[in-house]
Amino acid sequence: MKIKNLTITGGTHGNELIGVHLVKQWQNDPVQIKRETFKTDAVLMNEEAIRECRRYIDRDLNRCFDTFTLTNPPANHEEKLAQKLNSTLGPKGSKSPKSDFIVDLHSTTANMGLSIVVSNESELTWMAISYLKQKDPRVRVYKWMGDEEDAFVDSIAPHGFAIEVGAIPQGVLRSDLFFDTQKLVYHLLDFIDEYNRGFSMALENVEYFEHEILLDYPRDSEGNITAMVHEDRQDRDFDLIVNGDPLFRNFDGEEIYYEGESLYTLFINEAAYYEKGFAMTLARKALRVL
Amino acid sequence: MKIKNLTITGGTHGNELIGVHLVKQWQNDPVQIKRETFKTDAVLMNEEAIRECRRYIDRDLNRCFDTFTLTNPPANHEEKLAQKLNSTLGPKGSKSPKSDFIVDLHSTTANMGLSIVVSNESELTWMAISYLKQKDPRVRVYKWMGDEEDAFVDSIAPHGFAIEVGAIPQGVLRSDLFFDTQKLVYHLLDFIDEYNRGFSMALENVEYFEHEILLDYPRDSEGNITAMVHEDRQDRDFDLIVNGDPLFRNFDGEEIYYEGESLYTLFINEAAYYEKGFAMTLARKALRVL
Repeated sequence: MKIKNLTITGGTHGNELIGVHLVKQWQNDPVQIKRETFKTDAVLMNEEAIRECRRYIDRDLNRCFDTFTLTNPPANHEEKLAQKLNSTLGPKGSKSPKSDFIVDLHSTTANMGLSIVVSNESELTWMAISYLKQKDPRVRVYKWMGDEEDAFVDSIAPHGFAIEVGAIPQGVLRSDLFFDTQKLVYHLLDFIDEYNRGFSMALENVEYFEHEILLDYPRDSEGNITAMVHEDRQDRDFDLIVNGDPLFRNFDGEEIYYEGESLYTLFINEAAYYEKGFAMTLARKALRVL
Repeated sequence: MKIKNLTITGGTHGNELIGVHLVKQWQNDPVQIKRETFKTDAVLMNEEAIRECRRYIDRDLNRCFDTFTLTNPPANHEEKLAQKLNSTLGPKGSKSPKSDFIVDLHSTTANMGLSIVVSNESELTWMAISYLKQKDPRVRVYKWMGDEEDAFVDSIAPHGFAIEVGAIPQGVLRSDLFFDTQKLVYHLLDFIDEYNRGFSMALENVEYFEHEILLDYPRDSEGNITAMVHEDRQDRDFDLIVNGDPLFRNFDGEEIYYEGESLYTLFINEAAYYEKGFAMTLARKALRVL
């Protein structure tokens, strides 16, 4: 089935500025995202949060697209907004959604480089990812439903994923990551255009990182963190951690070691995850056969 | 004159976590900052902002210690707080202030390394800085009154400065910079203790960076930024910029070059300064003779 409508979403988190400014640029100059065989829209998601340069006002918007939140009376700003966006871009689970493909633009304080976070099993989504990895071999793929099940923005369309680039502080633009993200989106649009034309493309199987574990900071009985990510683990996203490796260092300077099977560490020391209760996530390598 | 009371302040900005957690640690275990010849207090400055992990609630607290704000009816949370802190730690300009020396702990998204921001001319302050540079040669010194005149926290005591460490995102801890900051504070306490005992110390003249210019982003008629820090300038704090060097890159990818005399770039791409209207500051090298 051909893609008729693709949506680029930015500013789902109001302090992740690369997506905000890319979407604004494309809204001012839509010819850059125009392709012949389908329609592309660029949408600013949480304008209130963008105005305040905060991740969210009341609740993380990128955890509001689960079926329960979308179908019950909304209790706050983001829940209302999620329902509105679900009706303009979805609705979730529909056979004829307003948007066939959503690419949601994010950035992270973790050293995730150019990464794709994918939550669905759609064949077309994985073909698109394979194409992007072919165009830019730096791209790495994390298969993760999120800390709450199936509640990401892109879950309201049948196809799609999030782009996560870092390391970049909240509230900051970096020229290199801005143009890297832009190029990935252009590659995606080119891929969808070729796909719609029925061109045959040689696509390779996709190496990806399959989510296993949310790993929290050590905390005291009141929930306050009592240690930091160890300086030897900081910035080592997509690197293996093995039993006995330094993991945290507490405020007295003592080291805390990793205990468990060998896995890959991702989203290390992301600012927004202190309150969610994890210091990093752990994943294993896997292969998606196309 | 001997120092009787020294105050370590953290959380002046609620999302700069190193100062917040150092102060909490010292409040729990004050023996670490105890020295025989003077009294040391560790104070959490803006608890509301810390709770929300934001720089400030209504107005930047570290711009509220000018005489006008301290002596007129307060209009918001931080102005009220500044007046309260001025009475518990100052008052500003007093000959017998509650605190003789204030060291205010900050972090920055700019690649400022281990730096000291100093605003005053007190001989003791500069002696302390010389001592710190001797103990840790990575320390660099920026003489800056701030974007608003003489309104920093440490301006309410006769002696003091701010410690600024980076690069680190807002809302994030880094183990390396946490312990670097901690060590600098311990060196400072040792220096004050020696000074109070009348020990003679061989101190070198201090090389520092003297503030010259606040350099804003290119903006449109509505005040929105139209360019980012150029990727070749990013992270080059305390580096020279010369006429014709790449400075910004606009959202279309075009380069914008620096025009002006050769100066040093500091606080490049600090998140909190987008709203203040500068992309970096410019300074020249100078020498403080002791």
